[in-house]
Amino acid sequence: MDSREQLDIAALRGRINQALSTFIEADNHYLTEIGQELEPVAKALRGFLLDSGKRFRPLFAVAGFLGTGSHISDEFYSALSSVELIHVCALIHDDVMDASDTRRGAPSIHKHFERLHEEEKLSGSAAQFGIASAILLGDLALVWSAKMLHESKIPASNLVASLPIFDEMEVELMAGQYLDIYEQALASESIERSLKVARYKSGKYSIERPLHFGAALANKNPESFYPIYSAYGLPLGEAFQLRDDLLGVFGDSATTGKPAGDDLREGKRTVLMAMTHERATAAQRETIKSLFGRADLDSVGVETLRSIIVDTGASDHLETLISSLFEESVTAIDNSLIDPAAQTMLVQMATIATKRNS
Amino acid sequence: MDSREQLDIAALRGRINQALSTFIEADNHYLTEIGQELEPVAKALRGFLLDSGKRFRPLFAVAGFLGTGSHISDEFYSALSSVELIHVCALIHDDVMDASDTRRGAPSIHKHFERLHEEEKLSGSAAQFGIASAILLGDLALVWSAKMLHESKIPASNLVASLPIFDEMEVELMAGQYLDIYEQALASESIERSLKVARYKSGKYSIERPLHFGAALANKNPESFYPIYSAYGLPLGEAFQLRDDLLGVFGDSATTGKPAGDDLREGKRTVLMAMTHERATAAQRETIKSLFGRADLDSVGVETLRSIIVDTGASDHLETLISSLFEESVTAIDNSLIDPAAQTMLVQMATIATKRNS
Repeated sequence: MDSREQLDIAALRGRINQALSTFIEADNHYLTEIGQELEPVAKALRGFLLDSGKRFRPLFAVAGFLGTGSHISDEFYSALSSVELIHVCALIHDDVMDASDTRRGAPSIHKHFERLHEEEKLSGSAAQFGIASAILLGDLALVWSAKMLHESKIPASNLVASLPIFDEMEVELMAGQYLDIYEQALASESIERSLKVARYKSGKYSIERPLHFGAALANKNPESFYPIYSAYGLPLGEAFQLRDDLLGVFGDSATTGKPAGDDLREGKRTVLMAMTHERATAAQRETIKSLFGRADLDSVGVETLRSIIVDTGASDHLETLISSLFEESVTAIDNSLIDPAAQTMLVQMATIATKRNS
Repeated sequence: MDSREQLDIAALRGRINQALSTFIEADNHYLTEIGQELEPVAKALRGFLLDSGKRFRPLFAVAGFLGTGSHISDEFYSALSSVELIHVCALIHDDVMDASDTRRGAPSIHKHFERLHEEEKLSGSAAQFGIASAILLGDLALVWSAKMLHESKIPASNLVASLPIFDEMEVELMAGQYLDIYEQALASESIERSLKVARYKSGKYSIERPLHFGAALANKNPESFYPIYSAYGLPLGEAFQLRDDLLGVFGDSATTGKPAGDDLREGKRTVLMAMTHERATAAQRETIKSLFGRADLDSVGVETLRSIIVDTGASDHLETLISSLFEESVTAIDNSLIDPAAQTMLVQMATIATKRNS
């Protein structure tokens, strides 16, 4: 691969998809050899992993690796792509925790297995079977992420060097998820608290840690790359999460795969909502209180809340914040230690992460 | 440690507890540094891990290691004990999947967090918060198991040699759990199918794989030990699960920490129930049908079902089967390749696993 090809994000995504596909075919085969009853598990995980996905985390891992000036072999593509399976676990379990019935426009995993229970006319509660299946499929995805890394056939010294970062990434993800559900349950309107959740949930886990993981896997003096990647990754991770906040309210369901205004119906405590609350008039706060978090919120209600968010200036302020975090992050990566082709890729990635519509 | 000490199972359990305690203190510290909000997570996991537990899986891993004639340093105790955290994940998630409110006589993790939600008067559904917390705590335990192994400071060659078995153990656990919930939902009365679940759920995961894992960690020609450990571990694992079946029906709640006859109330499809069904008269089948799986089953109902199980001879037959599996397993371990002290330990372990009352 020449350095021109390294900058082609679509081509890199293709290599990542190839690695994931090779892994899951082999492991699905292993599963169904244990028992044909596991066929639906294998099929559902394969579909969830391969049917879509932006591959942000593996792409950042790839960039972190390339930034050290190292060349990526097939073995390293396998190792770097393994982080996507952590994300599969997070999404499957997240949908159970939020009781979300759809994901990317299709039934979420627990809903899918609930239907399978109904179709096969099995006994017991279909909903409970759906939840139990989704817990196990998420667990399996988590186990597979480590397995894919472990068996990637990279040199032992590179593997061993990457394990501490890999583990920390996972611990921080689970910690961030707990902070998130606790924050939702506190029903807090604190901007500071929401930003902390954003930092752990997305900042560290989605961008900073995958970059560190890539550098650790390359294992060429990784410590010198960590602070640069943190200076790029943490602001970008926050911007990424803030973009999510905006998409959760203003996103088009055709591109997000979620019902329009889903976060409003769910009553999700985001930085956007905390900022809106801070800027709202007493009358606007009353309206928010009566509509926000109502499961039966209709399109008129969604529009009313959207207008308040726009009128307070919260959404504009968030856009400004995203732009300034984007600038902070691309400035940090302009560092002569980072391979120039990887620098270009990381600027492209920063653009994709903050200017996406899904 | 001299070879006499190696045979003292209580002392070995003490070393395992020490390793687990050292790990969890350090990692809890790391968690609460992320945020004080994580204090309940840290505390609950610590309590769940350290307050009780028979440490079967780490003990088998220790035996598998010692069987190869190797000496166990502190670092290897850490690596070998890591399998207990997989079990913590399995139990926490199992209780969510079964909607079991108690574990070892105390509230299960999801119930514990449901109460915390109520006590702190948080917003949203307390039950949903409990489930979400338990999913995350189980995930964290799974991540910690790998982390404890990875950071045990054993030589890289031993670590790398152990990873394939470690991963397979986890995949087989999740596969076995799915087979179990699917089996329950099928409401099957097949002895063959129940035995297959028992084989994956307990046979491989609780005994055979921990033994293999120990041999892989020792990394002294592990392949020559695997078949011997399988010949010992698979029958013993089945016997272990069959003992569980009997305890689930006849166990004393004071020692099991579960309500008496819990499996009968839950309608659990076990080998014991499949055998009872096969041997029952038409009248007995009718009685089973009307009582088995009733959540409101009282002590009279429990006694009625117990009598049928005894009268059909199913429980006696299971005792005979357990004895013969026990014999098969201790015969297999009588092999000159296995260190004599470890052989003695494995016979003791087989006795504990099949003759326990909790």
